[in-house]
Amino acid sequence: MPAHDAVEVILAKRDKHELSDSQIDWVIDAYTRGEVADEQMSALAMAILLNGMNRTEISRWTAAMIASGERMDFSTLSRPTADKHSTGGVGDKITLPLAPLVAACGVAVPQLSGRGLGHTGGTLDKLESIPGWRAALSNEEMFAILEDVGAVICAAGDGLAPADKKLYALRDVTGTVEAIPLIASSIMSKKIAEGTGALVLDVKVGSGAFMKDLTTARELAETMVALGTDAGVHTVALLTDMATPLGLTAGNAVEVQESVDVLAGGGPADVVELTLALAREMLAGAGRDDVDPADRLADGSAMDVWKAMIRAQGGDPDAALPQAKESHVVTAPATGTLTRLDAMAVGMAAWRLGAGRARKEDPVQAGAGVVWHARPGDEVTEGAPLFTLLTDEPERFERALASLEGGWTVSDEARGDASAHVAQDLIIDRIA
Amino acid sequence: MPAHDAVEVILAKRDKHELSDSQIDWVIDAYTRGEVADEQMSALAMAILLNGMNRTEISRWTAAMIASGERMDFSTLSRPTADKHSTGGVGDKITLPLAPLVAACGVAVPQLSGRGLGHTGGTLDKLESIPGWRAALSNEEMFAILEDVGAVICAAGDGLAPADKKLYALRDVTGTVEAIPLIASSIMSKKIAEGTGALVLDVKVGSGAFMKDLTTARELAETMVALGTDAGVHTVALLTDMATPLGLTAGNAVEVQESVDVLAGGGPADVVELTLALAREMLAGAGRDDVDPADRLADGSAMDVWKAMIRAQGGDPDAALPQAKESHVVTAPATGTLTRLDAMAVGMAAWRLGAGRARKEDPVQAGAGVVWHARPGDEVTEGAPLFTLLTDEPERFERALASLEGGWTVSDEARGDASAHVAQDLIIDRIA
Repeated sequence: MPAHDAVEVILAKRDKHELSDSQIDWVIDAYTRGEVADEQMSALAMAILLNGMNRTEISRWTAAMIASGERMDFSTLSRPTADKHSTGGVGDKITLPLAPLVAACGVAVPQLSGRGLGHTGGTLDKLESIPGWRAALSNEEMFAILEDVGAVICAAGDGLAPADKKLYALRDVTGTVEAIPLIASSIMSKKIAEGTGALVLDVKVGSGAFMKDLTTARELAETMVALGTDAGVHTVALLTDMATPLGLTAGNAVEVQESVDVLAGGGPADVVELTLALAREMLAGAGRDDVDPADRLADGSAMDVWKAMIRAQGGDPDAALPQAKESHVVTAPATGTLTRLDAMAVGMAAWRLGAGRARKEDPVQAGAGVVWHARPGDEVTEGAPLFTLLTDEPERFERALASLEGGWTVSDEARGDASAHVAQDLIIDRIA
Repeated sequence: MPAHDAVEVILAKRDKHELSDSQIDWVIDAYTRGEVADEQMSALAMAILLNGMNRTEISRWTAAMIASGERMDFSTLSRPTADKHSTGGVGDKITLPLAPLVAACGVAVPQLSGRGLGHTGGTLDKLESIPGWRAALSNEEMFAILEDVGAVICAAGDGLAPADKKLYALRDVTGTVEAIPLIASSIMSKKIAEGTGALVLDVKVGSGAFMKDLTTARELAETMVALGTDAGVHTVALLTDMATPLGLTAGNAVEVQESVDVLAGGGPADVVELTLALAREMLAGAGRDDVDPADRLADGSAMDVWKAMIRAQGGDPDAALPQAKESHVVTAPATGTLTRLDAMAVGMAAWRLGAGRARKEDPVQAGAGVVWHARPGDEVTEGAPLFTLLTDEPERFERALASLEGGWTVSDEARGDASAHVAQDLIIDRIA
């Protein structure tokens, strides 16, 4: 590898030049080895944030991060593989019903997930509310479960894209998170290293999402689809609404319960709709669009995979889920229509109740969260429960209630008028 | 002080907002204390480089760096004070004759100087070629010499603007040196903390200077004059040419000798011209424009101060200066006129001969350097010496000669025509 130096690479991007393949390969490798210091990488990240990278640079940057670690290979599995990644939203439990559903349709789902930080919950945090379930698996265990059960949701090992892991922690403390090239390459380096054959991206947009506006969300989706395509992974993105939270629950055990409801053939309509839409994309990407996932929900086979999947990781799918020690009910102040429910307000409330964490090392409460008893467009009756707040620590209610305040609207307009204010379509666009 | 956090301050500048006084005070203080990490400060520095700071921000930034350390106070001296700062150039020994000259005119000169890094030499490195002379003085020693002799050139203590010291080292390795707000506040924080009453800035422009183009040099000069004015220091800047090196020597002992020549009433015309111009500005700034410094050169009183100043710091002004062990002469290839002499080429040659250092911890050679025997516009004769290269280590000649190559032109045009190609005026503009 030709020798470069950190200042040279920083100056190139600072002065709006395209980074060469060799500069990118060198800087990622040298950063992983510790030869490029954190203070140099953060200056480069800021220059990238402000001056951008083109498609060639982002592809190479992603490839260099993949090359920094191990790369998994599922080609010896008896089934094709497909994976899903969500950019994160409030009440986004879709991975839980989706992975077993797609597996029930004959496509293996190696779902490496993370823990939550801030107002959006983490898939592993949710599953850990199931008694006995454990997130950490060896590669061998993961392969065995994938072959036997067809779906696995577990923690990503340290071996995948270590450069990304190091860079992500650095960006978090240096104001360089919100750079499309760095977000896209971070997500895609892990997903490509993971070795999936097909990938569906759920790019959320709205108040409760990382991307607040459609233009930025679309740019991120297009960048990630291009990266996946460049790396030979069949990649599609759905742009989906996150102005309103998904389903009727945000938290840990409450979201597991809602996911089980969906697998049992019930559950909120929006969660079912998005689960099926993402399942169809995953199946199409894996060449199995002959199967209709709605049938597998109806016939109970998705539920069977769920139970097998939970058992394979030590969990008891039939055990009672933990419940919060304390609850607080917010009632509707008037009879009318719920015309607005803000995802960020709900997410912050759930976080403040103890469902999420402020720092990586914080614990989360399995039972904490928010349940809402109406969705935008639903009629509500004065005095009837609108929200139930759940926590083990009642001193958390006050700040959680403050988060919810102003985050919802009950209107006494006739229903026909009120529904005009209701949020946009759940699935906004598809990018392939 | 209100609490801020590093990411908040970085995001503000990243997103092109004006930093508040309180954000600036906090970030400089917290960085000095180590609460803001290097990787956070480098991201902020890159955001400042790319998005800029306005005059209010730069003034506050400078004030915060001053507040990070001690501030000197010369108000108890019996004389007014004036200081000079040069942005650095090749053959720039002006401080050496200037400080005693101004002192001989009745204005005290507390000249805190640095060592050289790269192709421009450092004032302390030059003076250290005088047998016995030492750069380090306590504040008490410095005050005593200023009162007794009127001029002191010594190393800046660690107590002045420690935030700047830390930030400067960081910028050096993170590609964030070339930011006008950071350059200006770095220079001015030290000069204002030093407590001088009047300040003259020699902002160099051209190949051998840090600023290669006039627009950037002017912007730096205007920013620094504004900073000094905001801080209540009478500040003036001269924009001076550094396309051509100053005088006839670049090195350490050779520049001391040239300075002594000037103090003795001789020396190269350009060195005399710039020394007098800067002296007049310093005297005017200190309210002593009734004195003509040319008289003090002519009557030997500047030389008297020089000798007293050198003696006060342990040096012997009458001792023979060190000489390089080896020399190499480059002769004129033809009879004609020297039409061009590039400052960067000469500076690099002197550096490679051992007059300067590549890393802070490197030693320098007292005797090393380059002497040129003609200045642009002078006639030269085929075979006559054009350059003399000096070093203790003859293996250095080859790379030094390579640096000089292409850095000068001897033209056989008639002198009248050739002089049309000769460099512009030494003093380009005055900014007050």
